[in-house]
Amino acid sequence: MAFTQRHLLGLEGMSAEAIGAVLDSAASFKEISERDIKKVPTLRGKTVINLFYESSTRTRTSFEIAAKRLSADTINVSASGSSVSKGETLADTARNLEAMKPDALVVRHGTSGACALLARHVTCPIINAGDGCHEHPTQALLDCLTIREHLGRISGLTVAIVGDLLHSRVGRSNVHALRALGANVRLVGPPTLLPPDFASFGCELHHRLADGVRDADVIMMLRIQRERMGRNFFPSLEEYAQYFCLTEEVVRLAKPQVIILHPGPMNRGLEIASSVADGPYSLVMNQVTNGLAVRMALLYMLVARSKASGLDELEPAATPAPAAAEPARGRSGGRA
Amino acid sequence: MAFTQRHLLGLEGMSAEAIGAVLDSAASFKEISERDIKKVPTLRGKTVINLFYESSTRTRTSFEIAAKRLSADTINVSASGSSVSKGETLADTARNLEAMKPDALVVRHGTSGACALLARHVTCPIINAGDGCHEHPTQALLDCLTIREHLGRISGLTVAIVGDLLHSRVGRSNVHALRALGANVRLVGPPTLLPPDFASFGCELHHRLADGVRDADVIMMLRIQRERMGRNFFPSLEEYAQYFCLTEEVVRLAKPQVIILHPGPMNRGLEIASSVADGPYSLVMNQVTNGLAVRMALLYMLVARSKASGLDELEPAATPAPAAAEPARGRSGGRA
Amino acid sequence: MAFTQRHLLGLEGMSAEAIGAVLDSAASFKEISERDIKKVPTLRGKTVINLFYESSTRTRTSFEIAAKRLSADTINVSASGSSVSKGETLADTARNLEAMKPDALVVRHGTSGACALLARHVTCPIINAGDGCHEHPTQALLDCLTIREHLGRISGLTVAIVGDLLHSRVGRSNVHALRALGANVRLVGPPTLLPPDFASFGCELHHRLADGVRDADVIMMLRIQRERMGRNFFPSLEEYAQYFCLTEEVVRLAKPQVIILHPGPMNRGLEIASSVADGPYSLVMNQVTNGLAVRMALLYMLVARSKASGLDELEPAATPAPAAAEPARGRSGGRA
Repeated sequence: MAFTQRHLLGLEGMSAEAIGAVLDSAASFKEISERDIKKVPTLRGKTVINLFYESSTRTRTSFEIAAKRLSADTINVSASGSSVSKGETLADTARNLEAMKPDALVVRHGTSGACALLARHVTCPIINAGDGCHEHPTQALLDCLTIREHLGRISGLTVAIVGDLLHSRVGRSNVHALRALGANVRLVGPPTLLPPDFASFGCELHHRLADGVRDADVIMMLRIQRERMGRNFFPSLEEYAQYFCLTEEVVRLAKPQVIILHPGPMNRGLEIASSVADGPYSLVMNQVTNGLAVRMALLYMLVARSKASGLDELEPAATPAPAAAEPARGRSGGRA
Repeated sequence: MAFTQRHLLGLEGMSAEAIGAVLDSAASFKEISERDIKKVPTLRGKTVINLFYESSTRTRTSFEIAAKRLSADTINVSASGSSVSKGETLADTARNLEAMKPDALVVRHGTSGACALLARHVTCPIINAGDGCHEHPTQALLDCLTIREHLGRISGLTVAIVGDLLHSRVGRSNVHALRALGANVRLVGPPTLLPPDFASFGCELHHRLADGVRDADVIMMLRIQRERMGRNFFPSLEEYAQYFCLTEEVVRLAKPQVIILHPGPMNRGLEIASSVADGPYSLVMNQVTNGLAVRMALLYMLVARSKASGLDELEPAATPAPAAAEPARGRSGGRA
Repeated sequence: MAFTQRHLLGLEGMSAEAIGAVLDSAASFKEISERDIKKVPTLRGKTVINLFYESSTRTRTSFEIAAKRLSADTINVSASGSSVSKGETLADTARNLEAMKPDALVVRHGTSGACALLARHVTCPIINAGDGCHEHPTQALLDCLTIREHLGRISGLTVAIVGDLLHSRVGRSNVHALRALGANVRLVGPPTLLPPDFASFGCELHHRLADGVRDADVIMMLRIQRERMGRNFFPSLEEYAQYFCLTEEVVRLAKPQVIILHPGPMNRGLEIASSVADGPYSLVMNQVTNGLAVRMALLYMLVARSKASGLDELEPAATPAPAAAEPARGRSGGRA
């Protein structure tokens, strides 16, 4: 089995085989959410904590539904209403949560590297749900799954990633995954949001949208994250839209079977025209559906496997051990 | 079966038969919450998302408990900490949630008509948990259940609804339900909060509390929603209380067996005197208990039935299909 | 059975036998969280509401995980986004929640005595998760469990509680529990945070840290709760740290096998040096693990027992009654 890591902190350095193993597993998990009873007992009796220091609807919801459909118990902890405001360090918060014996921590944090830091302090699996401008690995995995599903492969495809590459953890994770899987990646954006050293990732850089999307198989739009930009990187939103909004006219420059992705939430009329967002080549909703499957697969691979050495030993999850109503007695008062 | 609709957006236009079907079902669900083990497997493997754009304790909690007692998985999404603040449209948020394959969306929103708008964008059942000044159908249904339980019928009763009719979604839903069920409805409030065109609903209008409650079978007090009123509709809270607070003296003008309802949260001393709120004819706590039953019934009727053509076909929920720990393999990479 | 109370409002006046019964039960519950499947069906079909008027990460999370590992359904209600902001009284909020037939209310509130007030208005068990400067009984119980586990007993030990005794509900609950269990308790802090009348609890008072911890078996540090102090009780945080921060040098004054406790979140460098917090005698993480076990034990003792007369009658929880998909019919419309 190619996917053997304890945590999912990012996709940088992950092999094509490991990424492929996650995508294969995710593809198989999609079917569960189509059932009448959308639930399997795989992670029954496991605890998944969603520790979100940044607000999120779809990512937190997706992880929560994924865990619940695997029968895990889920706990949401958000920065507001947490000990963060009481001056506790991130590592202490994570260690405290770990002392409650969770089986996975899903972490979103505004600081790049926060998840890697936590992985040095806790032993339970950590899944990065987005850390600063660093990585958002499950988003890139769901993007890859969506591309593979619709175009049959990723190797050899031309993928244009358009927008604020400088700040985008979605873009960064996708560059790592798509390059590992053999795609030709073009990064497209204004010079202020696309520094020349991004070429070192093995990508073509384009500052004109038309050049970037010409004959592309996939156009991946990034969100203009107004809330994340401390200063101005372009004169105005209107000017950004004038040059970088994905309109139907621009889409016609790409391959006829081009597919269009956007991680959401979309700024309609800013980075993507509504007619494109709702158009025939847009796979925005497929991405969301695939995100759920990717997260189910990762929770399964990281949690169900964490104490087993192989797939055969995972079978007991289907026939859970009988649990007693009364816990075992006779352990009190001893030295731990 | 009289209740065949896909969504519950409001009670306007709903037939007496359909309302009666919900009330009958709700009455039967009350018993579950009296059991030692308050849970049935009816909605096992279903996902109910509570999408609340306005704060709420009792309504959100009631829906959440209702879903859990039916064994559904519940997900709470609130406006704070959501993609709302990132500029996403309501329709996009709902479509995104739907792509995660929920079985129902329970929606509260500050804008009248928000639920109807969503129903045009998603296919899963939407339950209106209060939209602006428009409707709050589950509140009116629980009010009707409470009246029917305690007075044996609704047809022919005189029901006085007192307070801020202009802004009250509770009042509006009750007018529709009570009129459909054959009650005589009196609307009572100061002229600024009770426009003359409300007579078109087939109600008597009264501007004096004593006139409105005289010989009434039911007095339904509305909450003065200070947070919802953009400008002043009466000189002061004190003056409002002086003329429209339901005191024991006023209650004595009604029928001897009058019952008193309030949707909560109560402003004691403003629209209702504490002695009345805690008095023998107050059914405020019964309303809350019935609200839980009404929401269980609606989730059952809208979700369990959504894929079945009749009650007989619902039986499998009691003996859920065996779910495998390992999802089916061999589906990855194909075109969807 | 020594523990027969309906609520857990505080530890003041609780007998050594009752406290010991909780600790014995908690010790036995620890094992569940070490299992591969960390879940028992003990509280299946029960509803536990966490009603938190103050922000909290670890306490709310601990109660939520405890309830879920016992298979209870959990509902979180926080002050923000609640009817609190709509002017409802605490008693009305609690009565409303009780009308939804929960099996326990876990309550945190900023006002001392809030839980006792609620216990006069509702009949379901109330567990105090911290009320103002009054008590935080589950924290003290987990502290006692940790001490007993590591030192084999509590009676006769010397326990130094250091910090802001004036405002600390943790300190207050510990004084009651430790004194009941026969420990010698020293309270240590600056005069402004340690009023002379605290001697009436049967404790020694010390204003110098070195005097307080000399030959102690246990040092329990309290958190400086900056957010709780309305005015200045010491000239500056730096000055407080200079005199009361627990450093390795100070620890060496205590018994060689001293154990060090802190309820968290820790202000590293303020009341406790990082080297001590992470040092060999620190049991901070053990406390968190034990907190989960204490809360499981209490939920079990208060909820599972609330309708049964003895342990034998609790067995049905292990073999839950068959629940029908269809609730019983024929109850609608009657007078309640």
